[in-house]
Amino acid sequence: MTQPEITAMLAEYVNVPHHFAYANGVTVTRIDDKSSEGTLTVGETSLNPGKMVHGGALLTLADTVSACFVAANGGNCVTSNANMEFLRPAHGPTLTCIATPKKMGHALCIMAIVITDIHEKIIATGTYTFFLVQES
Amino acid sequence: MTQPEITAMLAEYVNVPHHFAYANGVTVTRIDDKSSEGTLTVGETSLNPGKMVHGGALLTLADTVSACFVAANGGNCVTSNANMEFLRPAHGPTLTCIATPKKMGHALCIMAIVITDIHEKIIATGTYTFFLVQES
Amino acid sequence: MTQPEITAMLAEYVNVPHHFAYANGVTVTRIDDKSSEGTLTVGETSLNPGKMVHGGALLTLADTVSACFVAANGGNCVTSNANMEFLRPAHGPTLTCIATPKKMGHALCIMAIVITDIHEKIIATGTYTFFLVQES
Amino acid sequence: MTQPEITAMLAEYVNVPHHFAYANGVTVTRIDDKSSEGTLTVGETSLNPGKMVHGGALLTLADTVSACFVAANGGNCVTSNANMEFLRPAHGPTLTCIATPKKMGHALCIMAIVITDIHEKIIATGTYTFFLVQES
Repeated sequence: MTQPEITAMLAEYVNVPHHFAYANGVTVTRIDDKSSEGTLTVGETSLNPGKMVHGGALLTLADTVSACFVAANGGNCVTSNANMEFLRPAHGPTLTCIATPKKMGHALCIMAIVITDIHEKIIATGTYTFFLVQES
Repeated sequence: MTQPEITAMLAEYVNVPHHFAYANGVTVTRIDDKSSEGTLTVGETSLNPGKMVHGGALLTLADTVSACFVAANGGNCVTSNANMEFLRPAHGPTLTCIATPKKMGHALCIMAIVITDIHEKIIATGTYTFFLVQES
Repeated sequence: MTQPEITAMLAEYVNVPHHFAYANGVTVTRIDDKSSEGTLTVGETSLNPGKMVHGGALLTLADTVSACFVAANGGNCVTSNANMEFLRPAHGPTLTCIATPKKMGHALCIMAIVITDIHEKIIATGTYTFFLVQES
Repeated sequence: MTQPEITAMLAEYVNVPHHFAYANGVTVTRIDDKSSEGTLTVGETSLNPGKMVHGGALLTLADTVSACFVAANGGNCVTSNANMEFLRPAHGPTLTCIATPKKMGHALCIMAIVITDIHEKIIATGTYTFFLVQES
């Protein structure tokens, strides 16, 4: 498959109703061999009681966008570790996540995460580790 | 306020519609001075494309349950760091999270997280760090 | 090999001069199938400029003690991630580290770390992840 | 004080015998308002039993270099969290660490770490969090 075909296939797999990320406003917008990107459209159920975007929504955005990069460039994977630093309060209307590989190993893939708001302020950074599942 | 009053007040604050955690099936069930507890009721939008509970849902459960402990025992807080190890695939019907303090400081509160399934298998463990916001 | 033999062999392998951990006062004192334990003997070169035990010494203690557990119970391994929360200032004369498995997988082993001082105060907690290296 | 004066003062404070980092071959070589840099000179006691540079040595390098940036640009600080991903085996003769701020807050400073070898391969990346100690 070509890269555009992989992206299209993964987008079809991920950006669909009845999944957690999609139901919460996450859309994966780009996957290539350098990085992946996605957005969170902030809605009325994205917030915490303090009226900021809930940390869980940011963590969901990061997990989904980085997993798509690993799936496209490494293969079938599960998240083994998520780590995120929350640097600033997060507000809508949209937040953007870019996931870039730190390491694509035979078993472990480590992704660097940056989430920015519409003013290009960095809201959160993180590191997600994925384990490649060997197909049997 | 007594501890039951604090718990009741926080539960009222957190377990309400139109918030991210509530909308995703998270309910905080107990907060006292030793730990806090909550559940995730797995629904049709809790899953990832692999038909397991999405990591973002576990991270949301952990964030909400641990933040409630800190709010009740430390004060108004924001999450500064989330870290979680995913140990086993997560399945419903419900998952339970217990959050226990590692440290309750004047500025930083660090919480240990354990998420179990209905068979009492440990699904995920984590550490959440909260920064106490000084009221002005 | 029996467990005492494995412990003896690993201790011989680790507790020897000219290695980083040994040179810095780390001794592995016990390894069995439940946990491993070791000590840091605080010396004049264990400190940071603030006269507390340097965080790097605690991280070294944790890495060494937890790696020995994984080596004894899982096999040849490398550290893939280290994470530590520093809860209190660390002082000598000795610090004790206990490492307990969170998960012993076919490829990934995740260890929980607790470091205490002689007053049994918890100084630091952490999580170390090891990747099992397949012998070829 | 000017930036060169701050760097000189911190270097004098850190790069001295009888401290853990110095005793293990760590030298802080540059601190300015954008980043800080230091090196680990690999010696016969820098290694683990597998003949690679011990993870504890990398963690010590990172802690020292990033703490100096925070001390110079934020003030007196203690490490509250260390997190490091080990990406490749580390070998001498020297390793270089650059620490760059992700956030310099009133209470929390978060530093991104990159450690490279002499071939400019990235050996490890990490995130260190420091808590600014208020002078009384």
